[in-house]
Amino acid sequence: MKRFSLFTFRRVALACLLALAAALTINFDNTAASVEPQTGDGKLRIIAFGAHPDDCELSVGGAAAMWAARGHHVKLVAVTNGDIGHWREAGGPLAMRRKKEVEEASRILGTTVEVLDNHDGELMPTLENRRAIIRLIRNWKADIVLSPRPNDYHPDHRYTGVLVQDAAYMVTVPFICPETPAMKNNPIFMYYTDRFMKPNPSQPDIAVSIDSVIDKKLDALAVMESQFLEGGANGHEGLMPKNAAERTKRVAEVRRGHAARNIGVADRFRNALKEWYGPEAAAGVKHAEAFEICEYGRRPDKAELKRLFPFFQ
Amino acid sequence: MKRFSLFTFRRVALACLLALAAALTINFDNTAASVEPQTGDGKLRIIAFGAHPDDCELSVGGAAAMWAARGHHVKLVAVTNGDIGHWREAGGPLAMRRKKEVEEASRILGTTVEVLDNHDGELMPTLENRRAIIRLIRNWKADIVLSPRPNDYHPDHRYTGVLVQDAAYMVTVPFICPETPAMKNNPIFMYYTDRFMKPNPSQPDIAVSIDSVIDKKLDALAVMESQFLEGGANGHEGLMPKNAAERTKRVAEVRRGHAARNIGVADRFRNALKEWYGPEAAAGVKHAEAFEICEYGRRPDKAELKRLFPFFQ
Amino acid sequence: MKRFSLFTFRRVALACLLALAAALTINFDNTAASVEPQTGDGKLRIIAFGAHPDDCELSVGGAAAMWAARGHHVKLVAVTNGDIGHWREAGGPLAMRRKKEVEEASRILGTTVEVLDNHDGELMPTLENRRAIIRLIRNWKADIVLSPRPNDYHPDHRYTGVLVQDAAYMVTVPFICPETPAMKNNPIFMYYTDRFMKPNPSQPDIAVSIDSVIDKKLDALAVMESQFLEGGANGHEGLMPKNAAERTKRVAEVRRGHAARNIGVADRFRNALKEWYGPEAAAGVKHAEAFEICEYGRRPDKAELKRLFPFFQ
Amino acid sequence: MKRFSLFTFRRVALACLLALAAALTINFDNTAASVEPQTGDGKLRIIAFGAHPDDCELSVGGAAAMWAARGHHVKLVAVTNGDIGHWREAGGPLAMRRKKEVEEASRILGTTVEVLDNHDGELMPTLENRRAIIRLIRNWKADIVLSPRPNDYHPDHRYTGVLVQDAAYMVTVPFICPETPAMKNNPIFMYYTDRFMKPNPSQPDIAVSIDSVIDKKLDALAVMESQFLEGGANGHEGLMPKNAAERTKRVAEVRRGHAARNIGVADRFRNALKEWYGPEAAAGVKHAEAFEICEYGRRPDKAELKRLFPFFQ
Amino acid sequence: MKRFSLFTFRRVALACLLALAAALTINFDNTAASVEPQTGDGKLRIIAFGAHPDDCELSVGGAAAMWAARGHHVKLVAVTNGDIGHWREAGGPLAMRRKKEVEEASRILGTTVEVLDNHDGELMPTLENRRAIIRLIRNWKADIVLSPRPNDYHPDHRYTGVLVQDAAYMVTVPFICPETPAMKNNPIFMYYTDRFMKPNPSQPDIAVSIDSVIDKKLDALAVMESQFLEGGANGHEGLMPKNAAERTKRVAEVRRGHAARNIGVADRFRNALKEWYGPEAAAGVKHAEAFEICEYGRRPDKAELKRLFPFFQ
Amino acid sequence: MKRFSLFTFRRVALACLLALAAALTINFDNTAASVEPQTGDGKLRIIAFGAHPDDCELSVGGAAAMWAARGHHVKLVAVTNGDIGHWREAGGPLAMRRKKEVEEASRILGTTVEVLDNHDGELMPTLENRRAIIRLIRNWKADIVLSPRPNDYHPDHRYTGVLVQDAAYMVTVPFICPETPAMKNNPIFMYYTDRFMKPNPSQPDIAVSIDSVIDKKLDALAVMESQFLEGGANGHEGLMPKNAAERTKRVAEVRRGHAARNIGVADRFRNALKEWYGPEAAAGVKHAEAFEICEYGRRPDKAELKRLFPFFQ
Repeated sequence: MKRFSLFTFRRVALACLLALAAALTINFDNTAASVEPQTGDGKLRIIAFGAHPDDCELSVGGAAAMWAARGHHVKLVAVTNGDIGHWREAGGPLAMRRKKEVEEASRILGTTVEVLDNHDGELMPTLENRRAIIRLIRNWKADIVLSPRPNDYHPDHRYTGVLVQDAAYMVTVPFICPETPAMKNNPIFMYYTDRFMKPNPSQPDIAVSIDSVIDKKLDALAVMESQFLEGGANGHEGLMPKNAAERTKRVAEVRRGHAARNIGVADRFRNALKEWYGPEAAAGVKHAEAFEICEYGRRPDKAELKRLFPFFQ
Repeated sequence: MKRFSLFTFRRVALACLLALAAALTINFDNTAASVEPQTGDGKLRIIAFGAHPDDCELSVGGAAAMWAARGHHVKLVAVTNGDIGHWREAGGPLAMRRKKEVEEASRILGTTVEVLDNHDGELMPTLENRRAIIRLIRNWKADIVLSPRPNDYHPDHRYTGVLVQDAAYMVTVPFICPETPAMKNNPIFMYYTDRFMKPNPSQPDIAVSIDSVIDKKLDALAVMESQFLEGGANGHEGLMPKNAAERTKRVAEVRRGHAARNIGVADRFRNALKEWYGPEAAAGVKHAEAFEICEYGRRPDKAELKRLFPFFQ
Repeated sequence: MKRFSLFTFRRVALACLLALAAALTINFDNTAASVEPQTGDGKLRIIAFGAHPDDCELSVGGAAAMWAARGHHVKLVAVTNGDIGHWREAGGPLAMRRKKEVEEASRILGTTVEVLDNHDGELMPTLENRRAIIRLIRNWKADIVLSPRPNDYHPDHRYTGVLVQDAAYMVTVPFICPETPAMKNNPIFMYYTDRFMKPNPSQPDIAVSIDSVIDKKLDALAVMESQFLEGGANGHEGLMPKNAAERTKRVAEVRRGHAARNIGVADRFRNALKEWYGPEAAAGVKHAEAFEICEYGRRPDKAELKRLFPFFQ
Repeated sequence: MKRFSLFTFRRVALACLLALAAALTINFDNTAASVEPQTGDGKLRIIAFGAHPDDCELSVGGAAAMWAARGHHVKLVAVTNGDIGHWREAGGPLAMRRKKEVEEASRILGTTVEVLDNHDGELMPTLENRRAIIRLIRNWKADIVLSPRPNDYHPDHRYTGVLVQDAAYMVTVPFICPETPAMKNNPIFMYYTDRFMKPNPSQPDIAVSIDSVIDKKLDALAVMESQFLEGGANGHEGLMPKNAAERTKRVAEVRRGHAARNIGVADRFRNALKEWYGPEAAAGVKHAEAFEICEYGRRPDKAELKRLFPFFQ
Repeated sequence: MKRFSLFTFRRVALACLLALAAALTINFDNTAASVEPQTGDGKLRIIAFGAHPDDCELSVGGAAAMWAARGHHVKLVAVTNGDIGHWREAGGPLAMRRKKEVEEASRILGTTVEVLDNHDGELMPTLENRRAIIRLIRNWKADIVLSPRPNDYHPDHRYTGVLVQDAAYMVTVPFICPETPAMKNNPIFMYYTDRFMKPNPSQPDIAVSIDSVIDKKLDALAVMESQFLEGGANGHEGLMPKNAAERTKRVAEVRRGHAARNIGVADRFRNALKEWYGPEAAAGVKHAEAFEICEYGRRPDKAELKRLFPFFQ
Repeated sequence: MKRFSLFTFRRVALACLLALAAALTINFDNTAASVEPQTGDGKLRIIAFGAHPDDCELSVGGAAAMWAARGHHVKLVAVTNGDIGHWREAGGPLAMRRKKEVEEASRILGTTVEVLDNHDGELMPTLENRRAIIRLIRNWKADIVLSPRPNDYHPDHRYTGVLVQDAAYMVTVPFICPETPAMKNNPIFMYYTDRFMKPNPSQPDIAVSIDSVIDKKLDALAVMESQFLEGGANGHEGLMPKNAAERTKRVAEVRRGHAARNIGVADRFRNALKEWYGPEAAAGVKHAEAFEICEYGRRPDKAELKRLFPFFQ
């Protein structure tokens, strides 16, 4: 199964050969432009994977809200249940609390959410996990699959990246997980952006303004109090507001911190914004999210990307 | 065991130190030129690993045929049995069919072939698999070991790359797999070329013209009907020829598609061809295969590479 | 848990936002300068991981001796017991021999040493091993954690690198290994330097002269006769001295070989030396060791690095 | 967690102690009689596990049909997908065929069916599989859980038995699989009967006449042609009927073979039948199924068993 | 390594052969009587394994207190950290709470305690766990090793039994865990008693009166409030005392429940008590604990058992 | 796949049904008598599995020699390489020494031998090991497969028993290990005898006099000096003969010890000997080996057993 690389010769622009090779099913049409949503309602279907219940919301909460507002179908999946993500609570009770938090966040964003029952801090790139992800992608009939890169500071993030990579292409192979119908086309797999430089830096292919939904995103993040107001695994007693005034202050701090993060993305990837919005509009973008195409999924051209991210009119 | 890096000081060109250090067995001679075939018939011994029964043939079928034609010994190993590599068939019956296909392909190419009984789509970098590969390399007394890079679109390809990397150097350590005599020297490990750019692009160290054997290679690929004529895992009913005329047409399409792939390699790595053939001859090369040295095996200099790839006269 | 990347916005230099965001515990202070040794005696605490009993000594033996001489606390950990690291001996008896060798080496260097009971050549990035490393780092209350990069020629080296990466950050999460108190701050994780270029080259952030302790380092390496005098896994009968004179000669050879290695590091990273010693002093450095900051730990600024490597006055 | 054995003292019949101990939640009421169906429709809920798609039907198809006919809820679960259970077919296509066969069988029996996507012949007692079974039992809110004993001729049968044992009791522990609400009471776990004598023989606690549904059971088994008409993994070309007459003959053979099996159960466990039906009625039972209480679930008394198997009026 | 069974011929009572065979080290002296404590203070050394923090205390708390009172050395090991053993709490915080509880219980009993950091409900019979147990037994220089049988209602109990069995004999093999000195003699391995009958019933070889320490044992159990007062994994809100009076009542209930358990053991194994105490004294024993010799350790004769359980004067 | 138990109805002796059921391939003929050796030379084919290099020789060396002397084909397989089976040596060098010892022993016995490269003391019942054993049995076309029971004092012995059980029946399923042709009939699986009583005692179905080959067996055991003369894992310096006289004495001791073991078997199972030899001849049997039928293989009747053990004329 090495049909992927066949698409090489297209680039060498030998038109006559191209016509012939098109007849091979060798995943040639990897770069093909047609992105007809697979479920017939004319809407896009997006599935985003994060390691913990809060990671998807942080990385793609803005775009998710924008897709959802246009009627597209977005599902957020936490690959672990987050059961060590707090400085004072842990185990099943914390997992249940975080599940409720992301359910509320998803209600705000207009998305669907699922939390897999894997221990936080113990995610491994097993075949069982790979299969679970293959089934989730197939059942969602995803046009776009999002995940962290396999290099990030937290092992669960890295192995989430590995697992989603390991599901890419395999979602099209009918006799793995044969009970879940395979996809006809490899979806487009994209990475969230991050700040890590080695072995290679995060290089987003697309950056989107989330200014129109920044409040909604901040609202969604705000309900995940275990992680942000209380500081998650690295929090401490000192963060806990002792009265309503302190609480108001703390909530505002968290909110501005989260906004700052998306301001940073906009600043770092201003050039990408320019490419998609034009220089003028890009200059006015305050909060952004950015995404990088993973080489192991289908490779969209710019026209297809535009259809998949219908935010640029 | 960190003797590898000792060869550092050779490059600082301190001749007097060099003489002394030579006395350390610290795998110093990693770059040493002597490539006396290890089995006494004066012939080279090459072992190539691919994830599925068709991957070696696609990636190194041409060079394999050229080595074989000169009497050198080439073995192709499929690390999985390919048992989900079809859109309609699967399991043991498909594995047996594909085994027969690669046996026939090997008969055409003049090579030996072996298929390991691992499920397609489920290859993992386990110690058991690492040991199996160590034994195969040792038993073949390989001068050259070929594999995919650990970054490629299919998880089985990536983990084949990881497994072969994990066998590199270990093949020289006598008390792992003690029942299989260890190699005196780390062989030269090389990657097939591919089109992936991250985290770093495929950068072949050598490119060889396979024009002289392109028909033989295409013949060999042609017998793997399950994968190419029928489209493998991504095929469909529509590809199946309904009569002799359709079949002739389909066979020709597949053949040209495969040729196109090797034309693409020649075009992408024209500079590498120039380096090895000179600009004039290189310009005339139509079909090529290309290979990149893996840093974890012995590092050949250009003279040794020329002896290992005796195709440049 | 994606709080890491929040520190983005600091760089965009929005001072007002910065103040607010400081209130989030989102591991913001990853780059914070305060390195108060965590155990109250005002001394630094360093823990170095190597794959085999000799790897730490080779890679950081000089700096370790320098730290130790200043009263700082250095622990060397061999993650495997080295039980296939010889051409004639193996198993438990070899493991015991090597344990004694590194204990003697540590006596010379002034460090502590521990050997984990994992088979040499069989190290895997399991959760059990990850947890063992988390506990070691926590119990040592490490300011600095050293390891090989996850790309190196020996699989045990690579997986040691992976395991230490997988422990980074997690050492700060209280409810993994809850019985071992978590660290308040992520330590600084650093890689040893190596000569591998792919997927990205070793790029040390700091290089230190070990000229003042080179004899001590060479003495420490000299006691690991199984590995160096006798050649380790790649040695052979011919290396064994047959009489006192031969032995003296062999010992000297090994010694010069080891010196050459550190001379090579100084030469390769002369620029880094200049950055830390100034051009003049750097030119005079003969033997060096060099280290690269891992992105998954805390990111020290130059001032902190200077305090952590108190060798530059 | 050793509260189970506390129920000891009940048997020592110290009534005063009993009252006190009842206050401990130590799963005391393990033998308690109340079996109010847990879902409110007053109906029993039964879940049966088998290794392959046909094992549940063979072992409990008759009782299942009888429960179903009375409106009780029966689910049959094949823990593997049966993908090597044929002499000529295998892999995903066979798995799909067998799934259809058991769906049709379940339609006939009036039960629900689920097939887990584990490879046939490769079932292992992993935590992942244990968790899957815990969730299935909880979600079905089972009153009775059925499985093979952990000793049987096929490794998949044995490990199915181990997995169900490993789920027993754990189904009541809320913080394993915290997202699936735990059961208040340990269900009754029962083994199918078998003919193995070591380490201890199958000793059914209850035997039920299936004479009233024997035709339905044989009809259900008849639709699993891959397994019975064609002979499954041990079949061969010679079994395949070449025409309608041969087919009719073969179908009848299979049918009588299956009947014979249940006749054998009735004959072997005539004493058990007598215990439940009285000597006279028992003598007239021709076809039976029999079940043995597993010590790791709740221990019903005879009255409760009668309510759970409401077939004795 | 099949030297165990050699002791066969001793039983055939061929004295002349016996003398000869004694020269074989084939673990002949498995039944040898000499039990000189291995650490030189003339005291016995006992190590008891339980699955959760409370299991050792329940099963051997009385005998432990009696040994300890005589100056013998007793260590209790919980093989999991018990982190799902409650109906409302879980994870690390619960693990820490339970660790404190068993530490307090051990203070009362006069024993040492250790809790291994394995998740409750997820214990598997891995090599890593086997090695951990081998090291614990060796380091404790145990004369007696206690564990549950490999058949019990909770999977963690069963796998604790398997793990301790898998450590038996191996503790005498020097080159497994070579860094921890091997034992010269296989200790005596004993099972706690339980109520399970299949595949074979618990058959204690010794029963001891714990009447003299029953209050101490009940005190020790009483401090494990998470498990008993609050009901552990199967508890509920209704068990929590709402005031001091309710609490006093609840504490007394728990206490009597625990006493009842040991009363039940005395009643069930009255015959064993008679064998060790004589009929008269046995009749007066109210609370007992009982233990069964595991065939995989050394087989003590009655005289040795008497020395190991010095409670019968 | 539950066809095994179908053979039930044969015992209910309904001849008419029997004829019909015979048409089901449901492994009915499990008890069938025909044992035509599968390779055409009219000779039996026996494969014996032991955990370590010496276990097969100890348990079945006599019968092996007797089969071999009649031209039957016997293969002995050590499932681990025995690399911790000595008090002073270990690892690969010991594994190589033991391999040579069993090769010499096999030369004496007239058998074939193979040693699998698994670490001694670390054998686990993995799928990889199961597959290796399936292939060995199939490739040997075994009529009889021998192994230890899954209860024995050494974990490697137990897991060897589990692995061989897990291979039983599966050897007949064509699409596991599809590249190795499946067996038409399940061979007869038999256990060695041992002295363990729980959960059930060793109950041999056949006992054979090895008086005619006892010297050959003792000679074969004598060459395994690492295990017997030197004492294996439980030996010590004191066993090593210091001169020729001591050596002669030690060799004789070992020899008599081994003889005593087989004398013990004859004495313990005198009744079984009587069943096969008649009371008179049985009384004269001095040395014996005994074997128990495993329920998971084919069940031979006495006539078939007699043909398989052709030693009773």
